[in-house]
Amino acid sequence: MKTIKYPNKDTWSEILKRPTREKKNLEKIVLDVFEQIKKDGDKALKSYTAKFDGAELKNLLVSKQEFAEAAAATPDNLKVAINNAAENIFKFHKVQETEEEKIETQPGVECWRKVTPIEKVGLYIPGGSAPLFSTVLMLAIPAKIAGCKEIVLCTPPNKEGEINPAILYAASTVGCNKVFKLGGIQAIGAMTYGSESVPSVYKIFGPGNQFVTAAKQMASLDGVAIDMPAGPSEVLVYGDETGNADFIASDLLSQAEHGADSQVVFVTCIDSLIDDVKKAVLKQLSELPRKEVASKALDNSTLILMKSEAEALELINEYGPEHLIIGAKNEELFMNSITNAGSVFLGNYTPESAGDYASGTNHTLPTNGYAKSYSGVSLESFTKKITYQRISKEGLKALGPTIEIMAEAEELFAHKNAVTLRLNELK
Amino acid sequence: MKTIKYPNKDTWSEILKRPTREKKNLEKIVLDVFEQIKKDGDKALKSYTAKFDGAELKNLLVSKQEFAEAAAATPDNLKVAINNAAENIFKFHKVQETEEEKIETQPGVECWRKVTPIEKVGLYIPGGSAPLFSTVLMLAIPAKIAGCKEIVLCTPPNKEGEINPAILYAASTVGCNKVFKLGGIQAIGAMTYGSESVPSVYKIFGPGNQFVTAAKQMASLDGVAIDMPAGPSEVLVYGDETGNADFIASDLLSQAEHGADSQVVFVTCIDSLIDDVKKAVLKQLSELPRKEVASKALDNSTLILMKSEAEALELINEYGPEHLIIGAKNEELFMNSITNAGSVFLGNYTPESAGDYASGTNHTLPTNGYAKSYSGVSLESFTKKITYQRISKEGLKALGPTIEIMAEAEELFAHKNAVTLRLNELK
Repeated sequence: MKTIKYPNKDTWSEILKRPTREKKNLEKIVLDVFEQIKKDGDKALKSYTAKFDGAELKNLLVSKQEFAEAAAATPDNLKVAINNAAENIFKFHKVQETEEEKIETQPGVECWRKVTPIEKVGLYIPGGSAPLFSTVLMLAIPAKIAGCKEIVLCTPPNKEGEINPAILYAASTVGCNKVFKLGGIQAIGAMTYGSESVPSVYKIFGPGNQFVTAAKQMASLDGVAIDMPAGPSEVLVYGDETGNADFIASDLLSQAEHGADSQVVFVTCIDSLIDDVKKAVLKQLSELPRKEVASKALDNSTLILMKSEAEALELINEYGPEHLIIGAKNEELFMNSITNAGSVFLGNYTPESAGDYASGTNHTLPTNGYAKSYSGVSLESFTKKITYQRISKEGLKALGPTIEIMAEAEELFAHKNAVTLRLNELK
Repeated sequence: MKTIKYPNKDTWSEILKRPTREKKNLEKIVLDVFEQIKKDGDKALKSYTAKFDGAELKNLLVSKQEFAEAAAATPDNLKVAINNAAENIFKFHKVQETEEEKIETQPGVECWRKVTPIEKVGLYIPGGSAPLFSTVLMLAIPAKIAGCKEIVLCTPPNKEGEINPAILYAASTVGCNKVFKLGGIQAIGAMTYGSESVPSVYKIFGPGNQFVTAAKQMASLDGVAIDMPAGPSEVLVYGDETGNADFIASDLLSQAEHGADSQVVFVTCIDSLIDDVKKAVLKQLSELPRKEVASKALDNSTLILMKSEAEALELINEYGPEHLIIGAKNEELFMNSITNAGSVFLGNYTPESAGDYASGTNHTLPTNGYAKSYSGVSLESFTKKITYQRISKEGLKALGPTIEIMAEAEELFAHKNAVTLRLNELK
């Protein structure tokens, strides 16, 4: 952990620099896998799954029986917890439904928008070190509320060809029954191009390693939309004299345990809090199972002492953290002045892990500074808005000349003519 | 124009195939220009403007005097038209403002979202054959309503170093005063990396040629968001026995005159209407100044006869047109069943050019089938939503165990500990 005191503004961007991931040349690997999938469909998918996941599969689709077995294998207390979280996530995303009024921009000119679900979506849930069933809830619940007709979920099997029971339980709980045993590039390729078993989709969501990220990026160049660009997860915690060093340390460590490239930043105007937080971090770290990963992340972490709350706010907005935890007396000031952040956690009893799992907010959030221009995943991510307009005869008589003049000034005479013809008929 | 009667469903995707643009290798050209801009700033920008636009510029920024001269040079009737359009566009985008309620997902767990403007945005307005001042309105008006602090507009100068007066008039009318004389790759590079004169931005909007498109794509891989992937413009017109062949032809030609690669499709269930439309197109075409461009686009256009409205609707949704014009008795059926389109124009007196210029809807729309997953540009495109949450002590006591169980099942023990520590303190 590096401590930086009263940094000059012109050094901020250097201090807050995210690690640039080595751009490995994955493009060719991805394109090769995509080509094989386009050519051989399921056969290619099964062969990659054997190669990369070590599983020989008869069927890619998870069967009803497997769902039933998974439900039986999921502990009851975990089921209750998943249901509690699912309910909160449902409530928070359900209120995101909007309806817009039809307006007359001028007499006889009616314009409106209609929210329409994206018909086919694909959800990717990584396997790897931990079974991320919470991400199933975060993606499938808004997809269901939106009314997406086809919801495809891909997640890699283990060597025995099995999916973690909690993932299947979470999926079936939220009504997502089309789960395929597919991971990595081949999962993204399957959802992009389709195969005998796997339907192609219009938009792909979900986190993943560098191969998944590269595959999503290549897919996005070939007509499929993706949720957002991916980067390592990050948290910035701000604390003042009301802050609790133990709580702050636990939040910093929550982030650090995600991966060695996780970004962890602590900002305060209270000098003594820096040492207290450092000590608490070291104490808690020693008891963590993932302490190796966490301590690598902590090597790149920064504790920054600022002169004033106003300056701290400026620094926070310059960084644009994915997660921002604010423990401050002057909470109102922060709430009103934060312009760049993915998700904000207010107060000493609002740990990041609440939002990661169960409070109801989505945990798929913009990283790497993208909070400056992107929102996290929400109901809107699974819908699009179609604009409609209807112009009456009287409406066109009034608006027509404006269109004619503008079209002519842009030298688009067919555009003008489409109005002139109609106005002539109305004479 | 190709006529296709009663195509089998398995041929639709072939019939409706968009032309694949030759992927020229523009990556290296773009990266070279970007490198120079990062290195030499304004000097590089001026040198590229001299090279590509033939203009030797002292200042990249349009001066107050130039704005005044442009206002004087814009004809009064065009000013009135621009103001009329601007007012309608303002009204339609203003009602897109939303406010979301704060909800308690469970007692003591408050969650909400706050709409926040994207602080810095860049608008690109192409020069080229026609001065697209209408696009200035379509991008700058929602940016202003959103409350974006920094709005940068780039548009290429002519050889004399001048910008078309209507572009400057439109920009100043909507309060967009930071206009730079920059086009092509160098404009996108300037807004991505910044220079002495040009501020860098977080999101870039606007249409452009293949160089601009490639530059936006490369910029998007380097941390800047973009509005949407670009493709040639397209229209699908549906008409039944209430359709007017002349009106339909004029709408098809409005699209065709945009460029040789414009996509123009006519769909009907009335056999005789196909010949009527063809004749009307040929008649109107001969009188158009841009008839060469339009007839190239018409070479690739398709007139399709379908068996039923239901089948036509299915085909329309499969195509997902940018612009969809519906002239049908059974308008309600279409309104309720369209799932994939950018903007829909209903009735015989609602030409596409109304939406292109002045009805109020946005004309920056998803092409190339992206209507299946993207909305057009709207107020939301200039904002993001930050999620907030605040959990009370009682709230955490109730929700905490759920978080602990889920975190442990995902093997993320620091996440669990962030809750456990707090619950222990509350005991």
